[in-house]
Amino acid sequence: MNRRLLLAGAAAGIAAARTAPAQTAATPETQAPGFYRFKVGDFTVTTVHDGFVLRANPLEGLVTNAPAAEVQAVLEGAALPVRGLMNPYIVTFVETGRGLVAFDAGTGAGQMAPGTGLLPRNMAAAGLRPEDVTLVAISHFHGDHITGLTTRENQPFFPNAEVAVPAAEWAWWSDTANEARSPQFQRGNFANTARRFAPLRARMRIFEAEAEVAPGIRAIATPGHTPGHCAFHIASGREQFFVTADAAGRPELFLRQPGWHSVFDFGGAMAVESRRRLFGRIAAERARMAAYHFPFPGTGYILEETGGFRFVPADWSSVV
Amino acid sequence: MNRRLLLAGAAAGIAAARTAPAQTAATPETQAPGFYRFKVGDFTVTTVHDGFVLRANPLEGLVTNAPAAEVQAVLEGAALPVRGLMNPYIVTFVETGRGLVAFDAGTGAGQMAPGTGLLPRNMAAAGLRPEDVTLVAISHFHGDHITGLTTRENQPFFPNAEVAVPAAEWAWWSDTANEARSPQFQRGNFANTARRFAPLRARMRIFEAEAEVAPGIRAIATPGHTPGHCAFHIASGREQFFVTADAAGRPELFLRQPGWHSVFDFGGAMAVESRRRLFGRIAAERARMAAYHFPFPGTGYILEETGGFRFVPADWSSVV
Repeated sequence: MNRRLLLAGAAAGIAAARTAPAQTAATPETQAPGFYRFKVGDFTVTTVHDGFVLRANPLEGLVTNAPAAEVQAVLEGAALPVRGLMNPYIVTFVETGRGLVAFDAGTGAGQMAPGTGLLPRNMAAAGLRPEDVTLVAISHFHGDHITGLTTRENQPFFPNAEVAVPAAEWAWWSDTANEARSPQFQRGNFANTARRFAPLRARMRIFEAEAEVAPGIRAIATPGHTPGHCAFHIASGREQFFVTADAAGRPELFLRQPGWHSVFDFGGAMAVESRRRLFGRIAAERARMAAYHFPFPGTGYILEETGGFRFVPADWSSVV
Repeated sequence: MNRRLLLAGAAAGIAAARTAPAQTAATPETQAPGFYRFKVGDFTVTTVHDGFVLRANPLEGLVTNAPAAEVQAVLEGAALPVRGLMNPYIVTFVETGRGLVAFDAGTGAGQMAPGTGLLPRNMAAAGLRPEDVTLVAISHFHGDHITGLTTRENQPFFPNAEVAVPAAEWAWWSDTANEARSPQFQRGNFANTARRFAPLRARMRIFEAEAEVAPGIRAIATPGHTPGHCAFHIASGREQFFVTADAAGRPELFLRQPGWHSVFDFGGAMAVESRRRLFGRIAAERARMAAYHFPFPGTGYILEETGGFRFVPADWSSVV
């Protein structure tokens, strides 16, 4: 299967449906739309699939502080492939009754790697219109989280939304003096930050860590993955929910071994500290969560187990 | 959430969408269609959600050979609720290029508990038409697997399909002399078997255990859950896939503790033996599988771990 996905991703670059003619007349080779919906108190949450990329060889360079043999053992122990590991992108929407909040903006249609940019199509399937989004709460400024703020033509994708950004994140990536102090392969973030926010400055709001960004929604400082990375806590009635963003990548790796550093982490040690604190809290409170790069639909619960954590996907339900 | 599902199931009885008016205009309270598609070699597999019921108190009577405290500990260790455990129904379809094979027939629209009977609607969403099904391969004769063979009016739901049934299963449930030797609450299966197969006798085929029921599809005798329960092995090219049917119920209980007897098992000890053998094989071969009552979409891999097994859902992919 992974060979197939690799080929599909590399060749056609369309993560939607195989373009080859269907093998028989009876079964179309199309996938179900990529959204999933559930309630948190009076709020309605929708996680929406924005596509995926495959990392051809996750043993090479993904984990920067463990030998390949250890990574391989953890992958195999989780029934994951050692070639062609999927990295999905998932944007979470929360309807609060006062507005529709998007958590991050996706990769942007046709702007990043083949296989990404499915958000507009899957939002449409979910009955979510870009013009209905009232707030985009940004966790951090990596390209796969902010590129979707604007189109290829640099028009706002969410035409009516305010955009709330973490103060520490804005401070870092809007100041090119920090470029030399950033990891080599993250330096493109400075230009992308300038480009994406240029048409949005009038509707941009900078929030401090722990601030309430909307009624019932509070930022949680979780620095390390980037200098100002924030997760979010959502509360409605007696229910709560966490949007963990990139506090952990694939859970089979970075929750099972929370001490591992990801190549995508700006500061590995600080990322580990934030990760342990956030997921320890979610596990202790037996709270529901959603993450940006967990297996779609990306929402479930966290168990603490020896040496780390385990992600337990929530039961899929036909009843919202 | 479970209280909500319990109320939803008990009251409206519609597992589709909340009938209450949407809370706001922006987000419809509808769920994504319940199907998921992937390839096994040249075959195209679709798992289709037929709804669910909630077991109000899984601590009472579900596991017949373990104390409630142990069941509670295992539920909590799997982040599952100790009230309102979901039992989903999933029909797997395999397009072989020579025909479309359904594995079991579902609960039948409007024929069993509220919240079930979603198969016709989700088949339509998946682009699968009942008239395109060429074969229904039956694992066993429990009501939630054969009731959907015919409509409320007792017309065949799959109008052009042959129906293949395990010989040992047919022998048991078609002979009312066995009624007194069956568990009390399974005695209704005799009347239901007679009713469902009456209009299908001309197109019924009885297969022996280990027989090839269609090219590339072989039955695996896994008795215990019922006297003639069969799983299925599917092979195409270099890939293989198992349909495990009811060799195990919820994996967090009956794979984690494969020695547990389910109240739904006809013969607990024999069910345990079949379960260990089947899932041991799937784990050893690192093969993909789908089950009837695992969390939807119900397909993934099996890991052997101390004392039992663990189900690892396959990554959801937008590429079929």
